[in-house]
Amino acid sequence: MGKLYGIGVGPGDKELVTIKAKRLLNEVDIIYCPEKKEGAGSFAFDIVKDHIENEKVVIKNLIFPMNYNKDALITQWRQNAEIITKDVERGKNVAFITLGDPTVYSTFMYVLHYIDQKKVPVEIVPGITSFCAVASRLNLPLVEWEENLAIVPKRKKGEEAFNKVFDSFDNIIFMKPNNDPEVLINQLKKRGLENNFILITKCGTDEETIVTDINVLADMKIPYLSTMLIKKGGQQWEK
Amino acid sequence: MGKLYGIGVGPGDKELVTIKAKRLLNEVDIIYCPEKKEGAGSFAFDIVKDHIENEKVVIKNLIFPMNYNKDALITQWRQNAEIITKDVERGKNVAFITLGDPTVYSTFMYVLHYIDQKKVPVEIVPGITSFCAVASRLNLPLVEWEENLAIVPKRKKGEEAFNKVFDSFDNIIFMKPNNDPEVLINQLKKRGLENNFILITKCGTDEETIVTDINVLADMKIPYLSTMLIKKGGQQWEK
Repeated sequence: MGKLYGIGVGPGDKELVTIKAKRLLNEVDIIYCPEKKEGAGSFAFDIVKDHIENEKVVIKNLIFPMNYNKDALITQWRQNAEIITKDVERGKNVAFITLGDPTVYSTFMYVLHYIDQKKVPVEIVPGITSFCAVASRLNLPLVEWEENLAIVPKRKKGEEAFNKVFDSFDNIIFMKPNNDPEVLINQLKKRGLENNFILITKCGTDEETIVTDINVLADMKIPYLSTMLIKKGGQQWEK
Repeated sequence: MGKLYGIGVGPGDKELVTIKAKRLLNEVDIIYCPEKKEGAGSFAFDIVKDHIENEKVVIKNLIFPMNYNKDALITQWRQNAEIITKDVERGKNVAFITLGDPTVYSTFMYVLHYIDQKKVPVEIVPGITSFCAVASRLNLPLVEWEENLAIVPKRKKGEEAFNKVFDSFDNIIFMKPNNDPEVLINQLKKRGLENNFILITKCGTDEETIVTDINVLADMKIPYLSTMLIKKGGQQWEK
């Protein structure tokens, strides 16, 4: 009986891989790389490939379609879980690599739901999350002192849910602000938070852009790979 | 002119340090280690000391008292910021190490408020957060699909604020559940979430304990180094 490692490889910089991830990727027999369709390639693998010195390791791509068709997704997750289970049952140590951290919106968890952990021993290796990378890049605290932090991937339906998050949280990370941005912009204006947001796109890449002007935000089409950090700024330190 | 690096060293496992952190700690002239009082030692330094091969590096401890006396804290932060600024101005490359991630409740950010970034170039290196380490340890998703996540360090005063967090979030991390646990336990009971929490103390150490029984929780004195993960479990996958 082998073992399954779910390994977070961080936000994109190959140096933001942990020492543990690097060691395990050189010890396992098989590395599974998620790709959105056959031949598309795996960004997670691009991050770690320079760290892999073990020439015997087998690289297997697993398909994870980028859509919201739940039935099709579940079929695919189940198939991928079967592939992994069979490899572990024939004694292989295997690693599933995933962007960021495996416990935060990762494909690894969806597969894990369909793996019987009584049969397949599982160990998760945490990784650097995208939102920590964003805050680091901006030299800003994500959250400090007695403040709280909300991570919101996509607004739940309705202004009401949205209002509650804005009401109750000092710091908010919106993971997909390109999704219906008008309501978001209206909230920023309504609450006098025009100067309290930062939109960052393709963080850490050559194509990175940063927007802090509400008028620019209102006029632009927010790209897909964007994150918005809102800091209400309640906690100010005496200078 | 040197440069200041704020470096996250992760939750405690020396292998959960990034490759970038390890490289920089071997390149800088000075490493600052936070300690709560003189001679107390630095947990952050314990995590990285085996990675430091550069014999010329100077280790400096900086005092960060563990209390909530804001005036005293600000005086200390300012003093520490001055020490760092002087070292950088005389051309030294320096690293401030901090547990977890530098942007999440870290001492580094408090010092950074008192450093003039026009004079001192600053780069932050993200680290693995404690809450990602906890979820990994438990083989549980912290947050998935369209769910959201709240990080709450210490309840704001009043049942009302508490209610809003429970109302609006699918997943909640309480960082200091030892602080007034009765209200927390009452909320779990009131909302039928008796089986939806996990309390983990001293995660990843030899003294780690895990509590999932509400009656045990109600009868115990919750230790200081505890984290509670609450998963309302809205998103269930078809098996």
